Amino acid sequence: MGNVAVIGYGVVGSGTVELFMKNRESISKKVGMDCDIKYILDLRDFPDSPFADRMTKSFDDILNDDEIEVVAEVVGGTTFAYDYTKRLLEKGKSVVTSNKALVAAKGAELLKIAKEHQCNYLFEASVGGGIPIIRPLNKCLAGNEILQISGILNGTTNFILTKMIKEQMSFEDALKMAQQLGYAEADPTADVEGEDACRKICILGSLAYGKHIYPEMVHCSGITRITLDDVEYAANAGYVIKLIGSVRKLEDGRLNAIVCPRLVAGSNLLASVDDVYNAISVTGDGVGDVLFYGQGAGKLPTASAVVGDIIDCLKHHHKVLALSWEDSSADDKFVVNYKETDVSMYVRIKAEDAEALKAAISEMFGKLMYIERANRPDNEIAFITPNMKESDIDANLAILSHSAEIASKIRVY
Amino acid sequence: MGNVAVIGYGVVGSGTVELFMKNRESISKKVGMDCDIKYILDLRDFPDSPFADRMTKSFDDILNDDEIEVVAEVVGGTTFAYDYTKRLLEKGKSVVTSNKALVAAKGAELLKIAKEHQCNYLFEASVGGGIPIIRPLNKCLAGNEILQISGILNGTTNFILTKMIKEQMSFEDALKMAQQLGYAEADPTADVEGEDACRKICILGSLAYGKHIYPEMVHCSGITRITLDDVEYAANAGYVIKLIGSVRKLEDGRLNAIVCPRLVAGSNLLASVDDVYNAISVTGDGVGDVLFYGQGAGKLPTASAVVGDIIDCLKHHHKVLALSWEDSSADDKFVVNYKETDVSMYVRIKAEDAEALKAAISEMFGKLMYIERANRPDNEIAFITPNMKESDIDANLAILSHSAEIASKIRVY
Repeated sequence: MGNVAVIGYGVVGSGTVELFMKNRESISKKVGMDCDIKYILDLRDFPDSPFADRMTKSFDDILNDDEIEVVAEVVGGTTFAYDYTKRLLEKGKSVVTSNKALVAAKGAELLKIAKEHQCNYLFEASVGGGIPIIRPLNKCLAGNEILQISGILNGTTNFILTKMIKEQMSFEDALKMAQQLGYAEADPTADVEGEDACRKICILGSLAYGKHIYPEMVHCSGITRITLDDVEYAANAGYVIKLIGSVRKLEDGRLNAIVCPRLVAGSNLLASVDDVYNAISVTGDGVGDVLFYGQGAGKLPTASAVVGDIIDCLKHHHKVLALSWEDSSADDKFVVNYKETDVSMYVRIKAEDAEALKAAISEMFGKLMYIERANRPDNEIAFITPNMKESDIDANLAILSHSAEIASKIRVY
Repeated sequence: MGNVAVIGYGVVGSGTVELFMKNRESISKKVGMDCDIKYILDLRDFPDSPFADRMTKSFDDILNDDEIEVVAEVVGGTTFAYDYTKRLLEKGKSVVTSNKALVAAKGAELLKIAKEHQCNYLFEASVGGGIPIIRPLNKCLAGNEILQISGILNGTTNFILTKMIKEQMSFEDALKMAQQLGYAEADPTADVEGEDACRKICILGSLAYGKHIYPEMVHCSGITRITLDDVEYAANAGYVIKLIGSVRKLEDGRLNAIVCPRLVAGSNLLASVDDVYNAISVTGDGVGDVLFYGQGAGKLPTASAVVGDIIDCLKHHHKVLALSWEDSSADDKFVVNYKETDVSMYVRIKAEDAEALKAAISEMFGKLMYIERANRPDNEIAFITPNMKESDIDANLAILSHSAEIASKIRVY
């Protein structure tokens, strides 16, 4: 008998129970024994739930039950979740999770504990919702040196940007719509400021490069300052604006990791990824580019990944599935300062006589591309710089800021 | 020490050796011990190869060496490859392969032998080249009931169709170009007739539904009869023509599996998959739609998948990774006759006074869509039927064929 517990009966937790119970017969067949959910831990009461008999409010019920082999931690956060996960792993119980905040903050430590106690800590659901990406990266692409991972990792911001691009909706209206549809939280900070995407790129980068990339090491900017003017200029130059998380290996072996809005060329597949969909592109020295696409969030898509991990743990009980990365707290130099890397930048400036600044701008940046738009006001120009060190771009813009307002600055993908 | 042998030093074999040796250090780290390629079996001589000292012409060298844990069978075909694989598995040596013909023909049997002898038979490289699809389907999506798998599974035909669609190249010219570029074999039959795609959809379907789908059970038609006229009509109706392999579960539990050219709506992501790229879309009851995209063939992309499987076998020596499906030779009824399923069909006919037939056609099919094209000859009309049982469409077209030539018939995706 394969007994499972679920901690947290919110959106993902209830989806996990629903999907598991719906496909329980085929899951049991795949595992090779009868499988069931024995406990659901939540502090709230669910008297009308068909699973009311499995509800518990006591973590100890789960921790002390030797029949429990696998626990799905879908409660979120880094306080209780951290404590629970640690204690479960120390008892040799495998834990699977969708908790990207916890994996990004404590992954190296929890993976080490799991290994020491002959159990597994799996987190396929922490990145890309139901999209398979952790296992493909860790297993299928293991023969490659990973050159770059980049993608649209947050569905909420992608929904907002899609509305801005396709329907000329303002950021504020698009955010309101996302909240009404349940895609954005009442406090949307973690999504719109890029923090959620940042956690995910930390997880993917840690996995690909074997060293824990902590969120504090990654420069992160969100989409709150993107305007419809920028969207229009971008379109006229053949781009769409997307929030991109990326990590890549530089020639000296160090990593460049950053989350920010970017101008993505229309010909790039990522430009066609709309609404709440996510897509992750991985470049390896053998495989070239591969792309993974699907719903990056939501009740059942995320549950799909959680249940997949549950099945893998049940199938391979007490076989360590050998997923791990090293801690990096002693070495914070392996992620470079993004200002020292080369980038091309879209810039929009405002100045009383903007046209008159073109000569100076061209002299600063050398060959650059000006972008037009219908009814462009006289006090505005927009351009894309050549590829150069970001700190040099900043130095130029600092000089320019004496005679103009730097209204927008968005990196080109 | 993890010792590997490679059988076959052709394109994929040499790519496997190249990628493995290039990343040997990181591979050894991932496996947790020093790993090397001990033998390369090929009947040809490669005196100038840097690996000449590992070359052998004797299969017994590999079979009888107890140090060999994993063998990559990349020789292709179903004769020697079958015999070698069977004997290796019976000795408890894991085998990994890119050999779709062998997996499609003998997968159930070879997986059973592997399981009985506590070793693994892995074939990530057999579908989609380097694109991770086997493991994601078998592991990450294991919590789902798979509703449908469909995709562009053959790079050669996709290259040819892309040239026809984007550059109005004829099929013959595009094929010639594919051959010059090394994308198509001198005898292109297996690609252009859809046989290669058929083997791949058999493998994916067998994995998803747990029963061996043999190629003989799957209706398969290729792209040799697609004309530029069809490409133009399709474009005018908002479609592109792609060779699609698909398998889906019907309400009665039986499967519909088919490989054929299809009109794919421009809004579908598959329509944007061009050149030699492949893309596989999987629909699950939890995850919704996920899509996997990348180079579906080629030396290093395919080697990427082979080496990934090698690493997995070395890491999990004598742990069976629990990949299997049942034989189905006793039950050939679980795949339905495609003629009994519903489909919408693009039809192009030729008749002296084609316009005059419209009344009769409309009466036959009910509501249907006629498609125009610039300079359409008077003796030609093209239309798309409503969704209906394919045998009923055929019955109608049989009547129509008394007064017109049925020039083209392509299913709509």
